[in-house]
Amino acid sequence: MAGIEEKILSSEPIYEGKLVKLYRDTVELPDGKQADREIVKHPGAVAMVPLLPGGDVLLVRQYRTAARRILLEIPAGTLEPGEDPLIAAERELQEETGYKPGKLMRLGAQYTAPGYTSELIHLFLATELEAARLDADDDEFIEVVRLPFDEALRQVIAGEIPDGKTQVALLLAADYLKRG
Amino acid sequence: MAGIEEKILSSEPIYEGKLVKLYRDTVELPDGKQADREIVKHPGAVAMVPLLPGGDVLLVRQYRTAARRILLEIPAGTLEPGEDPLIAAERELQEETGYKPGKLMRLGAQYTAPGYTSELIHLFLATELEAARLDADDDEFIEVVRLPFDEALRQVIAGEIPDGKTQVALLLAADYLKRG
Repeated sequence: MAGIEEKILSSEPIYEGKLVKLYRDTVELPDGKQADREIVKHPGAVAMVPLLPGGDVLLVRQYRTAARRILLEIPAGTLEPGEDPLIAAERELQEETGYKPGKLMRLGAQYTAPGYTSELIHLFLATELEAARLDADDDEFIEVVRLPFDEALRQVIAGEIPDGKTQVALLLAADYLKRG
Repeated sequence: MAGIEEKILSSEPIYEGKLVKLYRDTVELPDGKQADREIVKHPGAVAMVPLLPGGDVLLVRQYRTAARRILLEIPAGTLEPGEDPLIAAERELQEETGYKPGKLMRLGAQYTAPGYTSELIHLFLATELEAARLDADDDEFIEVVRLPFDEALRQVIAGEIPDGKTQVALLLAADYLKRG
């Protein structure tokens, strides 16, 4: 068996949008042939399950142009280049919910769509939340929704929450909380 | 409260790659202002948890250029335009693992990264598998890995499987199997 590893020969920007940056990577395949791959280069992101003392979780409702619908998601945001995910998690949580986390625990990480994007989302459980100033971006229209954790989990399992990072983070948080 | 709904005013192709198609959508925000959103339009995809009678699951190892690493994932593939996800699931499972599913059960669906892509992955549990011809694409280098379901699930929870669709599908399948 020839193996499955590919070797990156070059990585060329082919379109630079304001948010989405498209590259064409040329790779050497395991059989020695070459192939081109179009990929979106993404700086990475953070997403947090904010858990209040009584067991409620804070989610955000937001219109998503790409999906053509409103989605219910955990708070999330994009990393600044080189930024520590913990710093980003603290900032984005406050921006979207008005709460600062006293404690951030790593739940895992997720490649969202590794067939064509480099995006890796770092997932956290945020606890010991402290009400702070709501510091929203001007052009973000977000509604904070407070739900019992078990109800949010039920919605994931029933297929009522289709956002990938929210599904994974709530399922991993449920496993963590169950194990105490 | 002004609401959070946005209205799509126009959707313009700005770059057409072989695989990735980039659009600029102009939306009217809830406050009446306009904004542009760059989005990747994607035909959607399917991904399957193939469960063998003895309780083993079939995964695939594949080099992912975008992630710059080999990832262990459930079998998956892109929908043809307008294709029934069930038909695509059957085809892609055979292409990647050499098995035909006798039964496909819907586990849910997942927007992979709704901030910038329209991609929705339909997730299935594939059972009553029947060995068929391995019908791989010429330029795909894929290694099939057979693991006990519980070991695959353990790897998801331990953070050893970072692919988003694989995390969600295995966690949802575990919940389904537990409930009998």
